[in-house]
Amino acid sequence: MQELIDIINKKLDEYIPINYPEELFESMRYSVLAGGKRLRPVMCLETCRIFGGNIEDAMPAACAFEMLHTQSLIHDDLPCMDNDDYRRGKLTNHKKFSYSTAVLAGDALISYGTQLIIEKSKLPSDVILKVLQQYSLAAGAYGIIAGQIVDIAMEGKPYDFKILEYIHTHKTADLFRGVLKSGAIIAGANKEQLQAMDDFAQNLGVAFQICDDILDETSTYEEMGKTMGKDKAEGKLTYTALFGIEKSREKLNCLLDNACDIMKEQNIKSEIFNNIINSIREKAEK
Amino acid sequence: MQELIDIINKKLDEYIPINYPEELFESMRYSVLAGGKRLRPVMCLETCRIFGGNIEDAMPAACAFEMLHTQSLIHDDLPCMDNDDYRRGKLTNHKKFSYSTAVLAGDALISYGTQLIIEKSKLPSDVILKVLQQYSLAAGAYGIIAGQIVDIAMEGKPYDFKILEYIHTHKTADLFRGVLKSGAIIAGANKEQLQAMDDFAQNLGVAFQICDDILDETSTYEEMGKTMGKDKAEGKLTYTALFGIEKSREKLNCLLDNACDIMKEQNIKSEIFNNIINSIREKAEK
Repeated sequence: MQELIDIINKKLDEYIPINYPEELFESMRYSVLAGGKRLRPVMCLETCRIFGGNIEDAMPAACAFEMLHTQSLIHDDLPCMDNDDYRRGKLTNHKKFSYSTAVLAGDALISYGTQLIIEKSKLPSDVILKVLQQYSLAAGAYGIIAGQIVDIAMEGKPYDFKILEYIHTHKTADLFRGVLKSGAIIAGANKEQLQAMDDFAQNLGVAFQICDDILDETSTYEEMGKTMGKDKAEGKLTYTALFGIEKSREKLNCLLDNACDIMKEQNIKSEIFNNIINSIREKAEK
Repeated sequence: MQELIDIINKKLDEYIPINYPEELFESMRYSVLAGGKRLRPVMCLETCRIFGGNIEDAMPAACAFEMLHTQSLIHDDLPCMDNDDYRRGKLTNHKKFSYSTAVLAGDALISYGTQLIIEKSKLPSDVILKVLQQYSLAAGAYGIIAGQIVDIAMEGKPYDFKILEYIHTHKTADLFRGVLKSGAIIAGANKEQLQAMDDFAQNLGVAFQICDDILDETSTYEEMGKTMGKDKAEGKLTYTALFGIEKSREKLNCLLDNACDIMKEQNIKSEIFNNIINSIREKAEK
């Protein structure tokens, strides 16, 4: 997995050179190259490998989805949204640069991802189009944006499980769905396999978000590189607020078991996905 | 032209239905359906017609570019950028909804346009991909975003003609370039014709922006539906600030003459483009 992460980091660095206007490219690079586990691009490449594809073919899409993920973090951190000062142990984009630069760097990353997929993918046009469709679905009004707007609207409102599920599905699982289905599409997976990856993404994505909710209560800034405990303090609708930590862990384990079942059914052998699943379980238990 | 505008308005209304989360779709609709001359989609459809294409084929791209244009207006109006309260005689998006909703509605429109082109275009995959490339180039770090970030960075700084040209080219001409080239690509125009539309867009786009600079000094809120005179008050880098109104009019006329020459060279007969060119001349003269 570390090997894949290193390749991805190298590619991300290469895909965003510093051009004029430097302020824009520097701020895009600042957040994209800030580190992180590169979970989304790793999952994209691994899904491509699992279904018999060449991971090189999935590299532009994998990196594009990481840019999209970074965009969502830059905008989520803005004062008008979650108003966070730190991310991954560094100042957030608007704190390091400026409010307007952070808005524009985020905007630019959305289209930069599309451009990357179009210009760097060595695939038939109809395959590229299908990947772009996954990308814009995840990015847009039916994807992460829908999750984020409801998340903000629900702050301080009465808890509602259906709405919480909606937020988790769109804020987190939709991006997982986008990377997994894109990897599978590039490898030429069939309809049943695509549906399996869709279900897998839903289970893994929601489990990942529940883990995040648990960590917000159980972790410190030193462990996570960002201010913790904020969700609870601000009355955010989270899994732990609704069910408590123990029930949240149960739900998380149940979702990860579903994900493992889907892998078995599809006869998928993947050390990387096993590692990801185990790491979520372990973090949530601490 | 009014006929085309009516069709475009109907299509824009149809393409963005109100779905859950309503706040998001209402705010996207609020700005997209706020009126305006629909100059960019009209030019896209007209270019398609000029080169022998069917305007129906260009409708998704034409409307997508209008969404992208709207996105740039929503984000430009934000308090962290131009901080405008009115646009087209109505409250700006963040004033009507909220700061966070305006950021998210803008984000959503970028991907909504991509999705529209992919899902509604009845064209071969490689043609759709070429249109998407124009769209992401115009939208991104080498297009309107580059223009906007330099525009903001130059506020109150010493005037510099090269930088002013850079801002005008990217903030305005790049979007014109995107719509004209997309219309031409959809109609199957050849390389020489695409280059001609590129030059035409550059001349028309910069002339349009100079006209905007002139109107900022010569018009009132009642005529324009937005606060005027702000650029000057805030020390923005504009054509009129650099050359005065008379010289700006001369430059504008010169650029529009170039645009007319390109039409003649390419044997393009278009009442719509003639009207657009004449209307820019007349507005600048008032």
